[in-house]
Amino acid sequence: MAAQGKPGPPPNPLKIFETARAYQLSYIMRAAVELDVFTAIAKGSHTVAELAKACQASERGVRILCDSLTVMGILSKQGKVYSLTPDSAFFLDSRSPAYLGKAFKFMLHPRNLENLQGLAETVRRGSTAGNDAAFAPEDPIWVDFARGMAPLTVSAAQEIAKILQPELAGKPAPKVLDVAAGHGTFGITVAQQIPSAQIYAVDWANVLAVAKENAQAQGISDRHHLLPGSAFDVDFGSGYDAALVTNFLHHFDPATNESLLKKIHKAMNPGGQLIILEFVPNEDRISPPAAALFSVIMLSNTLAGDAYTFAELEKMCRNSGFDRARAVPLDPTPQTLVVARRP
Amino acid sequence: MAAQGKPGPPPNPLKIFETARAYQLSYIMRAAVELDVFTAIAKGSHTVAELAKACQASERGVRILCDSLTVMGILSKQGKVYSLTPDSAFFLDSRSPAYLGKAFKFMLHPRNLENLQGLAETVRRGSTAGNDAAFAPEDPIWVDFARGMAPLTVSAAQEIAKILQPELAGKPAPKVLDVAAGHGTFGITVAQQIPSAQIYAVDWANVLAVAKENAQAQGISDRHHLLPGSAFDVDFGSGYDAALVTNFLHHFDPATNESLLKKIHKAMNPGGQLIILEFVPNEDRISPPAAALFSVIMLSNTLAGDAYTFAELEKMCRNSGFDRARAVPLDPTPQTLVVARRP
Repeated sequence: MAAQGKPGPPPNPLKIFETARAYQLSYIMRAAVELDVFTAIAKGSHTVAELAKACQASERGVRILCDSLTVMGILSKQGKVYSLTPDSAFFLDSRSPAYLGKAFKFMLHPRNLENLQGLAETVRRGSTAGNDAAFAPEDPIWVDFARGMAPLTVSAAQEIAKILQPELAGKPAPKVLDVAAGHGTFGITVAQQIPSAQIYAVDWANVLAVAKENAQAQGISDRHHLLPGSAFDVDFGSGYDAALVTNFLHHFDPATNESLLKKIHKAMNPGGQLIILEFVPNEDRISPPAAALFSVIMLSNTLAGDAYTFAELEKMCRNSGFDRARAVPLDPTPQTLVVARRP
Repeated sequence: MAAQGKPGPPPNPLKIFETARAYQLSYIMRAAVELDVFTAIAKGSHTVAELAKACQASERGVRILCDSLTVMGILSKQGKVYSLTPDSAFFLDSRSPAYLGKAFKFMLHPRNLENLQGLAETVRRGSTAGNDAAFAPEDPIWVDFARGMAPLTVSAAQEIAKILQPELAGKPAPKVLDVAAGHGTFGITVAQQIPSAQIYAVDWANVLAVAKENAQAQGISDRHHLLPGSAFDVDFGSGYDAALVTNFLHHFDPATNESLLKKIHKAMNPGGQLIILEFVPNEDRISPPAAALFSVIMLSNTLAGDAYTFAELEKMCRNSGFDRARAVPLDPTPQTLVVARRP
C-alpha cells in the first residue's frame, strides 16, 4: 500500500509489547486464584477493604490485583465496587462444579514454562529440548491434569455420548474402550447416558485412581473397569463397540498414532465407532487461533507431537483400517471430534 | 439481564483459558527473536525450508513457530509463504534502528518472572515478596534495560525536546538535569534539538556507561556530563532550567517521590521546567489498559511503587513546590508526560 503512495499507519510497538508482557497476565490470574479472590467476591466482598479482609491480604495488593483483573476482562468495576463477570462467576468461584482454578496448576506447571523458556533450542532440534512430559508415565503432572481439566470436558463428553447413543443403546452390554481416560469423564458420561454400556478405562495406575473416584461419585463404578498401563502396551481385550481416544494423539508422531489406532482396530467389533478428540487446526494451520496455537505446546513439550489437521487425522484413521472419518466441531470450545468407523 | 428473562450467552471458558496460557506467547516471541527469524525473513527467506536453513533450525520447529507467530499477528502467511507485518519489519528486524529484541531480555528477565510467580504472597504483604529490583543499584538488569528500551523512547524524547525548545533555546547555555538517565536518550535528544543545552545525566555508574556511549555516538558528548550515583544522594549542583524524571517515580511511594522532587526543585532556576514521563492510568485506574496494567508490575517488583494517576502526580508536584502541572499524552504510546514549573 505504502509503495502505491497511500501511507499505512505509522509503526506501533504495542502488539509486540503486549506479546512480550503477556506472561504477566497468566501469573496475575494465578495469584487471584491462589488468594481465592473470585470466591470472596461471589460471597459478597466487593470493595478493596472487604476483599483485603476476606482474602487476608493487603489493601494495596488487592486494589492493584483487582484493577488488573478488571483490565483483563476477568472482573468488572463500577466506581469502587468489583463484581464477577458471568464467566468468572461460572468458572472461577471455587464452589462451582465448573471451577477451573485447579487446571491452572497443570497449565502453569513449572515444567511447561521451563520447556518454553528453551523453545529456541527446541526449534533448532525440531523436538523438545526439555523434559518430554508425555514420556513420563508416573509423573504427578498427569494427576493434576486429570483433576484440573475435568470441568472443561463436559460439552465434549455430552457430544460423544450423543453420537454413541443410537449406535450402542440397542445392544445388551456394549463395550467402550476409553483410551487415556484421565479424569474418566468421557467414559463416565457415556455410561450415564447409555445405562447398558460397560466402560474400560486405560491410563496409568495413578491417573486411573482419579477416574475411579469420579466413577464412584457418579454411581457407575460397577460398569467402569480399569486397564492400568501404557495404551501402547496394555492388553485391551476385544469386542469393543466404541473406542474413545481423547486428547492423546497430539503427543505422538503419525506413525506412532497409527500403531495405536491399529491396536484399537484389532480390539473392536465391525461397525464399531472410533471417536477422537483433538485440537484440529484448519488446513492453513493458522486458524482457528486456539487450535492452531496448540501445536507449539506440543513442539515444546513432546518429541514429535502436533496439532493435526483433519486431513492428517483422516489419513491416520484410513491407514489404520477405519473409514467414514468426519469432523464434528465442538463450538464454542477450541476442540473437534473426529468420528470414524471400523468397517 | 438473565434475571429479566433475557438469557445471556452460555458461560465460555475461552478468555480464562487464553489468560492462563498467555505466558506461552511471550516465550514464543522470545524464541523467534533468539533465532533471529524476523531478520531472516527480512533478508529474503520466506518458506519453512528457506527459514530452517537461514536460522540453522529444523523444518518442523520453524513451521510450528512461524504458524504460531502468524496466529499471534506478528507474521503474515499466504499459502506457504511467511512475511513480516509492517510492525515486525520495523521493530523486530535486528538491523533496524528501532529493533526491540534486546528489550525482551529486560521484559522477560527471570527475576521479573520469579517475582510474578510469588504475586499471591506479594498481594498478601502489599509489597514485593521477591527481590526488589529498584533497590539494587549495581544490578546488570538496569544495563539490559538501558540498552533494550532506547528504541521505544524516540517519540517521548522528541516530544520532550519540543516542549523545552521555546523555554531553553534563547538561553546561552541552559542546564538540563536528566534524572535516571538510563540509555541517555531523553537528554541526548534535547541536546540534539537545542544546540546550546548542557545535559547532566544522573544514574548508577554502570548504567551511565551506556548513556555515555550513546552520547558519543550522537556526537554530543562535549555537552553530556555524568553525575554517577543514586538520584537520592548525588549532588545535582544548581542552576538547572529543566529537569527530566523519566520512568522513575513509579518505583517509589509518593513521600519518597516528593523528597526527590523537592531536591530537584532546590537545584532549579525559577521558571524551570520539570518533565515527568510515566505510565499514567485514568482516575478509574482501569484504563487505558497498558498504563493501568503497569501498576501490577510495580506491585510485583517494588516495595511501594505504582502507576500513578495524573491527580496523584499533580499532588506530588504541588507538595514539592512545582505549579501549573499538565498532562501531555504520547499517543499511540501507553505513556504520558507530566509537565510542571518551578515558580
